[in-house]
Amino acid sequence: MTSSSSSSPSLSRSETLSLLALAAACVAILANAFQGDDKPLIVSLALSGLAFCASFALIRWLGPTFIKAGFKGVDLSKHHRREIPECMGAVCAAVYLFAIIVFIPFVFYKDVVAATSGGGNRDVVLQVEHVQQGRFLHRFPHSKLSSYLSAIVSLQTIASLGLADDLFDIRWRHKFFIPAFAAIPLLVVYRVDFGVTSIVVPLQLQPYLGQLVDLGALYYVYMAGVAIFSPNSINILAGINGIEVAQSVVIALLLALNDGLYLLTPYPHPATDSHLFSLSFLLPFLGVSLALLWHNWYPARVFVGDTYCYFAGMVFVVVSILGHFSKTLVLLLVPQIFNFVYSTPQLFGLVPCPRHRLPRFNARTGLLEPSVTPWTPDRQPRPPIAWALKLLGRLRLLRVTLDGEGRFVETSNFTILNLWLVWRGPLREDRLALEITAMQTVVGLFGLFVRHRLALLVFKEDNWSVPS
Amino acid sequence: MTSSSSSSPSLSRSETLSLLALAAACVAILANAFQGDDKPLIVSLALSGLAFCASFALIRWLGPTFIKAGFKGVDLSKHHRREIPECMGAVCAAVYLFAIIVFIPFVFYKDVVAATSGGGNRDVVLQVEHVQQGRFLHRFPHSKLSSYLSAIVSLQTIASLGLADDLFDIRWRHKFFIPAFAAIPLLVVYRVDFGVTSIVVPLQLQPYLGQLVDLGALYYVYMAGVAIFSPNSINILAGINGIEVAQSVVIALLLALNDGLYLLTPYPHPATDSHLFSLSFLLPFLGVSLALLWHNWYPARVFVGDTYCYFAGMVFVVVSILGHFSKTLVLLLVPQIFNFVYSTPQLFGLVPCPRHRLPRFNARTGLLEPSVTPWTPDRQPRPPIAWALKLLGRLRLLRVTLDGEGRFVETSNFTILNLWLVWRGPLREDRLALEITAMQTVVGLFGLFVRHRLALLVFKEDNWSVPS
Repeated sequence: MTSSSSSSPSLSRSETLSLLALAAACVAILANAFQGDDKPLIVSLALSGLAFCASFALIRWLGPTFIKAGFKGVDLSKHHRREIPECMGAVCAAVYLFAIIVFIPFVFYKDVVAATSGGGNRDVVLQVEHVQQGRFLHRFPHSKLSSYLSAIVSLQTIASLGLADDLFDIRWRHKFFIPAFAAIPLLVVYRVDFGVTSIVVPLQLQPYLGQLVDLGALYYVYMAGVAIFSPNSINILAGINGIEVAQSVVIALLLALNDGLYLLTPYPHPATDSHLFSLSFLLPFLGVSLALLWHNWYPARVFVGDTYCYFAGMVFVVVSILGHFSKTLVLLLVPQIFNFVYSTPQLFGLVPCPRHRLPRFNARTGLLEPSVTPWTPDRQPRPPIAWALKLLGRLRLLRVTLDGEGRFVETSNFTILNLWLVWRGPLREDRLALEITAMQTVVGLFGLFVRHRLALLVFKEDNWSVPS
Repeated sequence: MTSSSSSSPSLSRSETLSLLALAAACVAILANAFQGDDKPLIVSLALSGLAFCASFALIRWLGPTFIKAGFKGVDLSKHHRREIPECMGAVCAAVYLFAIIVFIPFVFYKDVVAATSGGGNRDVVLQVEHVQQGRFLHRFPHSKLSSYLSAIVSLQTIASLGLADDLFDIRWRHKFFIPAFAAIPLLVVYRVDFGVTSIVVPLQLQPYLGQLVDLGALYYVYMAGVAIFSPNSINILAGINGIEVAQSVVIALLLALNDGLYLLTPYPHPATDSHLFSLSFLLPFLGVSLALLWHNWYPARVFVGDTYCYFAGMVFVVVSILGHFSKTLVLLLVPQIFNFVYSTPQLFGLVPCPRHRLPRFNARTGLLEPSVTPWTPDRQPRPPIAWALKLLGRLRLLRVTLDGEGRFVETSNFTILNLWLVWRGPLREDRLALEITAMQTVVGLFGLFVRHRLALLVFKEDNWSVPS
């Protein structure tokens, strides 16, 4: 009945003071931003700081409420199995959406003023008849507002789906396609605002295909595919403390870095607006995610729930579709794509799939080991599967244990976490999360390098080089 | 352990056939609508039929799932107290939002075609340079899309709030103002698109105030007030089977009738678009609500939950703000306003407020009687309160029971449902719901009559009369 400091639902004095100081600084920055010129990035950063403070405090305070409402889980990879709050990603999603919605009047403040009275826009010399009419509506960037609102609709839809999944355990086949519906507003806005469905053909293929290939409707199918894949892929790279949030933070940071590359080009890049838009959605996401990571990192004091995974995946979809860089997102999801492809033998039932495939906790050593699918002498894989499993074992892509007569005893489960443990041996939970996160970072940085440097080998131009 | 037919989670054969027939008819209408001309109302009606079918089936099927997830309640006003699913309004909200989101491409189909290729719009003669550019973006009604999306954002926000309330029982003071935040996207769009903050002054006051009074920012405070009041007021006129849904259906029907008055004017009314927009949100709401009413009417097989009440209230706010008739909504909420004002003595603590104020079920007669606040000889109301209570009692606005020495024994609780029982005597639950619904209808019709007929006594013009 003793409550350790780590599970107390109140903030310590130093935490309270730090959060208050950070919040005060952010409020000061916000107040200042209104005095001076347009500094959307600074405003967005301050907002993200506030979102961090709010999430941090709410995650702590709402723990008992969530447990009382039935959102609780037991950490299987610990000696002391106690119940901790589950589904705390819902708090992050709520804070994030609240921040983004409350922010609408600020984002569009100058536009509203310009569109409705002209008073705030000193660059525009007003003609008398305009002043008389009082308004010149065509100046308001309605398409920007549509983009912003469509992003919010998509994110709210996916947050509701995640919450429904946490509440009701929706069946896999029912929930798999719902992110595509959540993406409908995005795709409509993309169609109307941008509508580019052509992809640039690599130089080497241009003699055969021409410079551009128009995918037409297929391009929308591709974007819906990204919208389905991204949330689901974050959701299946899960199972150890901190991994869901850490991978999301890395991807968000890399997307933000990619945005930064466009903002720092030597000449004003035509895509500057798209990337500012993207940053204004990514920075608050980083704010709420870091607050969650603080509580979810080993040893976890809260679980994130499916809500967070879906939500994080959809944030990436939203910024990459509306920012017109969905192919860059695919590059950053390479570990997730690998995890999904690697999982297919179990997802598609070629190999039996237990309910949980998270790494096995060895209570004696306190380390994680690969979890396994057991095979009995009566129930052996069919010959082609057996051959493939042995091949994977020889390629060190699977741990295969055979008995003296060459029959399968057990094979490690098909997830990247188990594979990493096959390669690196038993690891403590936080060590495994750290290594996977480092791998995600390295792969992502390489992806961005490919995108911006090596791409010049196969494409004629990029944001850093003007066409010759 | 016997499961009566009314609580079976599957549809009967005749229900299945009826729903399938209705759904097939709606799909046929939708398919036809794409062949022919623009018939937004027909399309919306067909969509609403589909929403009805989906809600009806899902409410039935998901009952056990909701009970398993902890969404269950006991009906206090029945002889047999068994647990039935709670919070089924969440299903309606989800179906509604799903329908509205999936519908976006259809609503804007012709606009997208016109804006992106011109191919679908036979009225427009394309100039060569436009065809070359491929797109003429300014043609797309971005402001319409913004309105549509802002409505969805507001509704999703309120649905999430309702669900959070059903899950966590949020404290009154925490949740009271949240609808105002949910309305932010609406108010921004209102500001940008319409921005009228003047109200017409009654003829009799015009010599003193002029023809129009510009309320400026106060008008936004007023609209935020409506956004707070409407969801909360539906939520406090609750407690007996069917009453939450029945009042919402009546208000939605009256709003739709009001829209119809604008569509049937002898000349094309300038507000036609606003009212078509309003209908396209009201009709699907009627679809999902009628499916819920079927299950929630006496004897209720499901409860609706706070989610439904908040959601219904916000649908009215959305259509009335974006349709620019928020004052008409206030007229239709007169019974809710009365209930709120009448409740204030208990809401503000002048009279003790028990946890539940729903009418008391008399198990002997099977009828509902007014529930009461008991007073002990030690704990009597203070003199001014006692005087006011006695006055209310004399005006037949309260049932007051005194003992032989003039001390208070009990007073009926301050809700319109209890007051109605004071007036009309003990009633069966469905009879009470029916009478309150009839009263809501009559008051609402009178409100519309005032709005469209008597208004001419104090205002110079209306939708039925051109200014002379």
